[in-house]
Amino acid sequence: MSHNPVIILVNPQMGENIGFTARSMGNFGFNELRIVNPRDGWPNKAAEATAVKSVNIVKDAKIFDSFNAAVEDLEFLYATSARSRDFNKEYVNSKEIKNDIKKHNVKLNKIGILFGAEKSGLDNEMISYANKIVYIPTDPNSKSINIAISSALLCYELSDLGSAKTNKHQDLATQKDLGNFFSHLERMLDETNFYKIPEKRDKMLHNIRNIFKRIHNLTSNEVSTLIGIIKDLFNYQK
Amino acid sequence: MSHNPVIILVNPQMGENIGFTARSMGNFGFNELRIVNPRDGWPNKAAEATAVKSVNIVKDAKIFDSFNAAVEDLEFLYATSARSRDFNKEYVNSKEIKNDIKKHNVKLNKIGILFGAEKSGLDNEMISYANKIVYIPTDPNSKSINIAISSALLCYELSDLGSAKTNKHQDLATQKDLGNFFSHLERMLDETNFYKIPEKRDKMLHNIRNIFKRIHNLTSNEVSTLIGIIKDLFNYQK
Repeated sequence: MSHNPVIILVNPQMGENIGFTARSMGNFGFNELRIVNPRDGWPNKAAEATAVKSVNIVKDAKIFDSFNAAVEDLEFLYATSARSRDFNKEYVNSKEIKNDIKKHNVKLNKIGILFGAEKSGLDNEMISYANKIVYIPTDPNSKSINIAISSALLCYELSDLGSAKTNKHQDLATQKDLGNFFSHLERMLDETNFYKIPEKRDKMLHNIRNIFKRIHNLTSNEVSTLIGIIKDLFNYQK
Repeated sequence: MSHNPVIILVNPQMGENIGFTARSMGNFGFNELRIVNPRDGWPNKAAEATAVKSVNIVKDAKIFDSFNAAVEDLEFLYATSARSRDFNKEYVNSKEIKNDIKKHNVKLNKIGILFGAEKSGLDNEMISYANKIVYIPTDPNSKSINIAISSALLCYELSDLGSAKTNKHQDLATQKDLGNFFSHLERMLDETNFYKIPEKRDKMLHNIRNIFKRIHNLTSNEVSTLIGIIKDLFNYQK
């Protein structure tokens, strides 16, 4: 049972694009695909091939021979469109669609997102059934987006996955670890007379410390590596 | 002159995906494409065909035969990756990358976004050169995103970056500056037999590179300081 909006491809031409759409749906947690009058009939081998892991979304897709039949059980429709239309209908930027959906008190699986054919998009008749038009903000000189891309972008925007990926928990370096590194380094640089001008010593040490303090998430193992490196270089007998 | 990050495809296989990437770049206001070792040679007719209106991005793409040459003038690299890597490197959610870029105060056209080959993604060696890893949040059971889709998603997220006001830019270290530091360090560590176990050399070099790549906003002056330090230690005659 889907807890995400339904993706509806109207008169899609290339099976590859149907498959790509299904693949993106899988990537972003969608599963209900409806197709109105696929040009090359159904089933479609190219769609199954390009769907890769999401081949079941293709196999389970519901096929309709009329637009109205495909949307009749839905409560809220967004039509995707790159062109401005001569409709007095609210336009929603794709970057705002998630917030927009939250404003409407509709069950997610009662929402449909409509995508038109590759060549022509949705016709005005279909758009007239939509509650709102969603558009992807583009360079005004390059508005035409492939259907596989626009469906991916919408699924991406609407995906509910909030689980952030994090690094494995690691032992980060303590101030003491880093202090240990700095005191080794300072002693070595004093011994090699690194600073040349004694008055500059402190300022230079600040600068050097400042470099190493900016290493994001430095671990204690990594501090050991750094200490290993400077000891190794310092003790090398040529 | 580009005011957006550079898109870099490393070892791309299908010309169609190169073209789709260019098309998305055009949709979202990008123009600088670099390609390292395209599998099917160059120029590539399939890439030109699928780019549609953005065919000039394909025609103007810079082709490189080495990864390092492709990135040496850049100051900040994001590697795209679907897999968790065994690196201590910061992961940035694609939905946060715009904010992340604003934090770093780097010129936009000195930022590179790296995409690996369709089959395998970026290898660990390349990832080790990146400052951060950017990932697209997906369903954990369906992580594999086609390169044409992932490049579109990143361009979409990053469109309009140039309109944001940023602070004065500093001269940050380029990949070449840092490469210079690393090659000094590698030569020295080879000479001192730092690794002990030869099989561990590459892994250790990745780890070491990874430490220094995480220094926030490293400047070229600071790289000079680092080079000064290791030369000083290495050449010290006790």
